[in-house]
Amino acid sequence: MEDLTKEKRRVHFEPDNVDIIVEQGQNLLEAAIAAGVHINASCGGAGVCGTCKVLIKKGEVESTRTEKISEEEYEQSLRQACQSRIITDLVVDIPVESRLETAVLDRERVGGIQPSQALATGWRFTPPLSKLYVELPPPTLKDNISDLSRLLRGLKKRYNLRNISVDFNVLGKLPQILRDSDWKVTATTLVTTTKTKPDKRGTRLINIEPGDTRSKHYSLAFDIGTTGVRGQLLDLNRGKVRAEGLDYNGQIRYGEDVISRIAYCQKPGGLKKLQQAILTTINGIISKLLAESKVKVEDIAHIVVAGNTTMVQLFLGLEPKYIRLAPYTPTVNTVPLVKATSLGLEVAEHVYVYTLPSVASYVGADIVSGIVGSGVYQRKKLTLYMDIGTNGEIVIGNSDWMVTASCSAGPAFEGGGVKHGMIATNGAIEDFGINPSNFEPVINTIGGTKPKGICGSGLINIIAGLLEAEAIGQNGKFNTNLPTKRIRQGSDGYEYVLAWAPETQIGKDIVITEVDIDNLIRAKAAMYAGCQTLTNSVGISCSDLEQVIIAGAFGSNIDIEKSIIIGLLPDIPRDRFIFIGNGSLLGARLTSFSTDILDEGERVAKMMTNFELSVRVDFMNNYVAALFLPHTNADDFPSVSKRLAKLPDSKSRRGLTV
Amino acid sequence: MEDLTKEKRRVHFEPDNVDIIVEQGQNLLEAAIAAGVHINASCGGAGVCGTCKVLIKKGEVESTRTEKISEEEYEQSLRQACQSRIITDLVVDIPVESRLETAVLDRERVGGIQPSQALATGWRFTPPLSKLYVELPPPTLKDNISDLSRLLRGLKKRYNLRNISVDFNVLGKLPQILRDSDWKVTATTLVTTTKTKPDKRGTRLINIEPGDTRSKHYSLAFDIGTTGVRGQLLDLNRGKVRAEGLDYNGQIRYGEDVISRIAYCQKPGGLKKLQQAILTTINGIISKLLAESKVKVEDIAHIVVAGNTTMVQLFLGLEPKYIRLAPYTPTVNTVPLVKATSLGLEVAEHVYVYTLPSVASYVGADIVSGIVGSGVYQRKKLTLYMDIGTNGEIVIGNSDWMVTASCSAGPAFEGGGVKHGMIATNGAIEDFGINPSNFEPVINTIGGTKPKGICGSGLINIIAGLLEAEAIGQNGKFNTNLPTKRIRQGSDGYEYVLAWAPETQIGKDIVITEVDIDNLIRAKAAMYAGCQTLTNSVGISCSDLEQVIIAGAFGSNIDIEKSIIIGLLPDIPRDRFIFIGNGSLLGARLTSFSTDILDEGERVAKMMTNFELSVRVDFMNNYVAALFLPHTNADDFPSVSKRLAKLPDSKSRRGLTV
Repeated sequence: MEDLTKEKRRVHFEPDNVDIIVEQGQNLLEAAIAAGVHINASCGGAGVCGTCKVLIKKGEVESTRTEKISEEEYEQSLRQACQSRIITDLVVDIPVESRLETAVLDRERVGGIQPSQALATGWRFTPPLSKLYVELPPPTLKDNISDLSRLLRGLKKRYNLRNISVDFNVLGKLPQILRDSDWKVTATTLVTTTKTKPDKRGTRLINIEPGDTRSKHYSLAFDIGTTGVRGQLLDLNRGKVRAEGLDYNGQIRYGEDVISRIAYCQKPGGLKKLQQAILTTINGIISKLLAESKVKVEDIAHIVVAGNTTMVQLFLGLEPKYIRLAPYTPTVNTVPLVKATSLGLEVAEHVYVYTLPSVASYVGADIVSGIVGSGVYQRKKLTLYMDIGTNGEIVIGNSDWMVTASCSAGPAFEGGGVKHGMIATNGAIEDFGINPSNFEPVINTIGGTKPKGICGSGLINIIAGLLEAEAIGQNGKFNTNLPTKRIRQGSDGYEYVLAWAPETQIGKDIVITEVDIDNLIRAKAAMYAGCQTLTNSVGISCSDLEQVIIAGAFGSNIDIEKSIIIGLLPDIPRDRFIFIGNGSLLGARLTSFSTDILDEGERVAKMMTNFELSVRVDFMNNYVAALFLPHTNADDFPSVSKRLAKLPDSKSRRGLTV
Repeated sequence: MEDLTKEKRRVHFEPDNVDIIVEQGQNLLEAAIAAGVHINASCGGAGVCGTCKVLIKKGEVESTRTEKISEEEYEQSLRQACQSRIITDLVVDIPVESRLETAVLDRERVGGIQPSQALATGWRFTPPLSKLYVELPPPTLKDNISDLSRLLRGLKKRYNLRNISVDFNVLGKLPQILRDSDWKVTATTLVTTTKTKPDKRGTRLINIEPGDTRSKHYSLAFDIGTTGVRGQLLDLNRGKVRAEGLDYNGQIRYGEDVISRIAYCQKPGGLKKLQQAILTTINGIISKLLAESKVKVEDIAHIVVAGNTTMVQLFLGLEPKYIRLAPYTPTVNTVPLVKATSLGLEVAEHVYVYTLPSVASYVGADIVSGIVGSGVYQRKKLTLYMDIGTNGEIVIGNSDWMVTASCSAGPAFEGGGVKHGMIATNGAIEDFGINPSNFEPVINTIGGTKPKGICGSGLINIIAGLLEAEAIGQNGKFNTNLPTKRIRQGSDGYEYVLAWAPETQIGKDIVITEVDIDNLIRAKAAMYAGCQTLTNSVGISCSDLEQVIIAGAFGSNIDIEKSIIIGLLPDIPRDRFIFIGNGSLLGARLTSFSTDILDEGERVAKMMTNFELSVRVDFMNNYVAALFLPHTNADDFPSVSKRLAKLPDSKSRRGLTV
């Protein structure tokens, strides 16, 4: 035995194409985890769930066949990874259904993220919500303990569940359900506390159902954005997204950004109206998710929510006034569990809402959720995490430390404050090219329709294009000497015509004005100055960043190269940039899938140090220096400077603009 | 120093008139506890509460003066017992305000119980409900954590309170209260779990108030009886009963005993009606308590409830059906905390109801409460605890073990099933004497008014009197040969006229019939057979009982001697009997006063082993044997047998009845 374990074996995992050298006799699931290969293992390796089935394509394992592997599957060399010891060198194939990242990334509109790059790893599939089936011995005169005691005794015996607290509402229906179902019932339990201390985990019995309902085990995850709300219906047996829905936040009609919504709350009944609006939105998404998935509302028993601090407070009906007033204090960072129906959500009575924790008034649960979901807190790699938007949030750090800040970029990224600005839907100009000889544009719209306006990512591309073509200078002003009718004096000053009226859906010329450009420059300057101030605060510079994760719906659609050209993103090697899409929803989903992640959320929020940029003189200096394309300090943008310097007329342009 | 502590000192405590010999240097509070003298010490001896002030009348202590003792008090030789070391022999006077038992027994309608005999001792005055005042530093840009984090940080710093959970409802008002009160607030916290493991105590933040409201710190304790409901408003700063109220249980109109009420619940809407009835009763008592005490409803923040299992389930709105059906299972023994307003109690939104735990369907929270309150679980003394009533409950045991049973005695003790029976109010015949020569009665009524009927305790006295006068035989039948018109044939068989129509309030002869006597014999037989069966089960006999505690409103009014004569109570030395009045309310009150007692309640309930008498053959045998006055086995009642044997005509009477 001693000898056995000392011999080395090579295991090759497909389709990841990853090798690992391990000692003979090692557990195959553990070897996969060590190799960074993700195998679904709902039960955490106890052998009871059967979700970690792998195909032994070559070599030999020692593996007990449990009831989770049929004889036919065993014949085909399928084995439970958690039940297998490595005997010889192996080639192991992980079928799609056993692949964790498939489940997790399912339906994410993001390209080639590799889990090892920007996804939390190493967590077990252990949802905080559990369904536990028990068959209880019926009471007799010799054993006539209370119905609740009988149930808890059964849960303790079968699942070793102790010190469970009980929702009072369970008691009302308990006696009848126990008897009607012949003492065979399914208990729903929820983890109520994070693991601040090893054995302090709290669990609460929240529901009881007749018979075995384990196959109906669902939760909801939501990201409440200022503009859009995205929800997913999650299958907690399979770790999969069952349905997904998206809608505008119904609060938009009361104000476009968080500041105007907070202002609206100061009107009589304002807070109530805003809360009702977001509830209506969420209830609408829930009802679509149910219709699409054919899941019944009573089979959903948990809701996980992330969002920025203001959105979370409005959702919970908490006065947001002091978020806006210095010194910018939120009511709460770690939100207690709250009954979904008490808020007004249209779900079963026993459902609780878990809200991811936030860090500060402008560094919300959405950011914590993204940091957790993307695994920034797990890696040594120095990472910049950005959520670009009206309120841009920035996190810098790694597994040892994290600092965070938010900067008010204004609405330009969302198309706000821009003459023909619009959100990123059909008809929005999202891509732009320009003929450097005659300055004629080439435009692409979302959906390929006639243009209707310009979305935020389009704006970046247009400005980068105009800059590279020298149609505008580095100060964002038009070069009015060019031989083109497209640059002209408009009602708001100089402008460039992107599309003539007949080519549009709106029957008017679609233009980009100097005011629009100025708004975007201010927005990008705020984001960049935020990054710069934060990196300087911790004694590093942007070029030290080993990874930049861009989160958020807006971020997912931007062009890295063009964003660097205008000075929104730092000028570092392009392969360090990763898009993760809606990081907030990713973290909320993982939280619903894993109590490990739930624990990490609380820990990570406490680990993040918030910097208030608004009170820092260096932020203001950095901001002013960034009000230039790409930046007044050309050395910060070496590749852009080089590129612009190559342009024929660069010297005269510089003379014009500085 | 070594020498000092070896010298013995005598401490005399007044007004208890108790001496103890201790070593010099011992702490005075500890000496008092060792002497069985009860001193209020809210803080458990930490020196911070100032409630343990004592007067050193003679001798010398070494005592640091803290801010809790004014200079004037120090001059008058007042000292904090917990801060004092004994130097010389002492005479110590405990002022009324420092006397614990005064607080605890205040307003109890019971005579000379000594705390050491039938009151839980050694507990600290540490209510599960706390009011904690904190002054928080206002937020600044350098310290702009969330409002909740600021509050929790303040509570941790000032009171070392960690791992506190937070009621979601606190959040809504938190921001405004903090700012309106200049960051000086009072937090109300509630202990939410018992101490199953040393450091697992849970605490919940349930309310926040502006400024320092510690002086307004009240709770309510209730005993919900089948017939009567008794409530007390408790001052949690002083450990005193501030007001007391009593009313009939409004459910009486739906049935007199628990069985008929359970039956009523099977009608449509029945459970809801019964719950509403008890809530109306309790709300009425609360409103009287508030009016009497001038306490404001918002200053009450905790409710502790005890009652029999059926009453508790009806109060909580839990279907009681299975309490009545074999195998007699209650829904719950350990009731989770429940919001008072969610039940329908008219108190502040943040108030939780704590229900004492029960043991079984017919051994309820009222009995556990009584056992805890009377300290049976603390003493080595073998004790019988009885609550005599329609459902008689019996506990036998001591600090090592406890067994319990209930026996259905029927309603005779409450005046039910008795021709002129009534509950114990004005006009009820409660005492009875009989002239052995002419068989004329001497009656006393409650309130000294003309008679209206007979209460349960009166019934015992009447039957004992008739037996001793040989007007009835040991089988409960009238001796119809006596020279008196008072014994006559009535509509229900033979009867004895207690009062002629003109002497009564009801204008009719008040009589006791053979049917009435028979009902009482069956009731007392059930109680006695229960005691006998239970004592036999644990291998002892009634004469081994070192103490008999009689609880309950009915029990408090019975005459021990006469109850022994009829065979209700065992024939053991009379000084072993102690009345404690409403033990259920006593335990509920102590639970509200002390988290130590709260812990003990849960522990004691689990420690009690329930016997189902209804399925035991020996119980039936014992019951039949007890259907005699006092008992078919004369040896069980030696003093009564001796007394009856002394009567002139005892032989003929025996001949008549056996």
